[in-house]
Amino acid sequence: MAAARLTSRDIRSESRLVVVRALLAAGGSTRNELAEATGLSLGTVSTIVQDLLKYEIIAETGPVHGGIGRPTTGLRLNADRGRVVGFYLEDRYLEATVFDAALGELSTVEATSEEPVEDADDVIEWIVGALDDALGKAKASREDILGVGILLPGGMQRPVKAETVPSAIWLHLDRLRDRLGLPVVVDNPLKAIATAQLWLGAGRRSANVVAVSLGIGVGAGIIQDGVVVRGATNAAGEWGHSLLAFEGRRCRCGRDGCVEAYVGLPGIQRTLAEIAPGHPLAGDRDDWTFASDLAAAVESGDPAAIATVERSAHYLGAALTDLVAILNPEVITLSGWADAPASRERVLPIVRQRVLADAPGDAAAGLAIEISPRCGMEGIAAIALERFMRDVGLVTTRVIPAL
Amino acid sequence: MAAARLTSRDIRSESRLVVVRALLAAGGSTRNELAEATGLSLGTVSTIVQDLLKYEIIAETGPVHGGIGRPTTGLRLNADRGRVVGFYLEDRYLEATVFDAALGELSTVEATSEEPVEDADDVIEWIVGALDDALGKAKASREDILGVGILLPGGMQRPVKAETVPSAIWLHLDRLRDRLGLPVVVDNPLKAIATAQLWLGAGRRSANVVAVSLGIGVGAGIIQDGVVVRGATNAAGEWGHSLLAFEGRRCRCGRDGCVEAYVGLPGIQRTLAEIAPGHPLAGDRDDWTFASDLAAAVESGDPAAIATVERSAHYLGAALTDLVAILNPEVITLSGWADAPASRERVLPIVRQRVLADAPGDAAAGLAIEISPRCGMEGIAAIALERFMRDVGLVTTRVIPAL
Ligand SMILES: [Zn+2]
Ligand SMILES: [Zn+2]
Repeated sequence: MAAARLTSRDIRSESRLVVVRALLAAGGSTRNELAEATGLSLGTVSTIVQDLLKYEIIAETGPVHGGIGRPTTGLRLNADRGRVVGFYLEDRYLEATVFDAALGELSTVEATSEEPVEDADDVIEWIVGALDDALGKAKASREDILGVGILLPGGMQRPVKAETVPSAIWLHLDRLRDRLGLPVVVDNPLKAIATAQLWLGAGRRSANVVAVSLGIGVGAGIIQDGVVVRGATNAAGEWGHSLLAFEGRRCRCGRDGCVEAYVGLPGIQRTLAEIAPGHPLAGDRDDWTFASDLAAAVESGDPAAIATVERSAHYLGAALTDLVAILNPEVITLSGWADAPASRERVLPIVRQRVLADAPGDAAAGLAIEISPRCGMEGIAAIALERFMRDVGLVTTRVIPAL
Repeated sequence: MAAARLTSRDIRSESRLVVVRALLAAGGSTRNELAEATGLSLGTVSTIVQDLLKYEIIAETGPVHGGIGRPTTGLRLNADRGRVVGFYLEDRYLEATVFDAALGELSTVEATSEEPVEDADDVIEWIVGALDDALGKAKASREDILGVGILLPGGMQRPVKAETVPSAIWLHLDRLRDRLGLPVVVDNPLKAIATAQLWLGAGRRSANVVAVSLGIGVGAGIIQDGVVVRGATNAAGEWGHSLLAFEGRRCRCGRDGCVEAYVGLPGIQRTLAEIAPGHPLAGDRDDWTFASDLAAAVESGDPAAIATVERSAHYLGAALTDLVAILNPEVITLSGWADAPASRERVLPIVRQRVLADAPGDAAAGLAIEISPRCGMEGIAAIALERFMRDVGLVTTRVIPAL
């Protein structure tokens, strides 16, 4: 019910998450420092710390000697509280990463398949196999696991048309839960990259962040006022399928003129083909190899490659300006193909100039556009950890639509 | 500080606003009904009602006899607590509306000027004159006023280039406050239309609403998770200056290809001129008259007018699809030129079809697109009322950047 949702931000659970995130950001801290860092009263922080200690989410580290007065007790996240495991799943590719309960990465394994893995039983066994491999590498067992998170484009919804994701998972999530005997949360990559920025990245210093992911597909995770924007059905952030050019290039989603058709890797390849038809890099190729080959061509002074990168930067700048116009963020983080030396040097200056010139009014005056290494896997691990806190009753009201 | 802002949603003040809005929506209510409507506990509602009674924001209406048990006390907003006054200000046009403290409209006055009113003293005296006129019509005096709200494009920021707004106001707000001797809040129209939907419109039934305003300029007020989205510098919602067509029509903001250049009234006029150069309606005209003349031409079967309206509907559908892709709202409300019989009949069906076809995945499956009479003036009055609740200490932490 709408009215009830309006009050769903229970301050206790929200404050507990704020304290956990502040402690994660600080590494180690004290009650006083946490009160200062979060803006909560010392009394509130002390109550929250008590709750978190009770469930062993955090641990005391012994006396900390400050400048004056008696020593206070140090606090840290309790990394050994257990393990959370993140999965990234495509029809021919699977990645599993084990994290400790302070979101430290312990191990990661990848699996590929020549043929698409589409049958529900096959997908489930593929996941189970990767889980056991990753746990083995991390010297952990299933009993240690607090939660499992699975990154799926589109989350629990029908995905954007033509995504290469086994649909079996969201049709058979209960079977996967039964097979694993573990809490499983499914969410989409855009919510995960936003959550990663909130817990580990720009969200630590700013309440208004847009985390832009640039790969074969592109999208935006949105943090507004310190909260991940999910929208009515968890589908917010599909900036890649907003318009760059009315009746422009056909996008793989079926729409004409989407941002993704210009700044996704296949779109950049298409730009190269328009600039230099017959260019050796313009053919049908593996997209991530294309990115590094294009960078090498730029380095060697290939004019078509340089023109392609520059035109793509103008497209990207224009598309980011739309995010600035609509959302007015303080920080835009870029991950994916932007995180390469060639992009940093050639793309970012054009992008920044274009956004500053085109954004309405002063909307971009204080905006930072920066490269970020944070990834969706960290975000889905944080979401799984949050889900665990909900299971034990520490986080009472936060709704994750994709659960 | 960013971390402190993360905790700024004080549940008490948030809940008080939720109760006030629920009472406004219900007209009259009881503590039990308010608890049910808001999802708050009866104890919390009782405490909040006590606070609101103390400051006379609400009033008791005597016993209400329910089905069984003893009668309970009826509650309503205390309309006679005082008056709030909203202003809409352009350089040649000024409107003032007096509301009671339950947001009922009591009087409205308009003033026009042949020459732009730009000098600070002139603007201030213009406002004072309109205030006295509007108060006279409402049989109210300055002593009754709880707060004054002024709608200004761009709010306290430098506005979008080429807006026709006297810049004197935000440079001389302190002088205006001194001259009036009243609390004055300034905000921009997009935040005001979002607030109007939150208090009086679709925000009553949905937590995710985009309120689209279609006039000479166009923009979107955004409600996400029951909160008005302001962005880092209160500049969010400038959807009108996001891209429809890369390197498309020059917009009055200086950017090429903005949504506004296609679906603002001058943009529609331009579409007509493209379809039928030399058409009698395609010249330089007063824009609001153009809207009704175009509607009349459509009624009379003018093929160029019909083609213009249909192409504009496709543009609007495409631009709204971008909002759906990025924000995934449950409701989009349209106000302005869409609220005319010709638009309802010819524009809305095309718009709905286009959004459903082009929105990514299932993002638009449950979306309602509807006409709404709610206006920014009601929103700025609600903001002024909220500001009054803040001044008396009932709303403690809500930050209105444009104050
Ligand atoms: Zn697309
Ligand atoms: Zn513009």
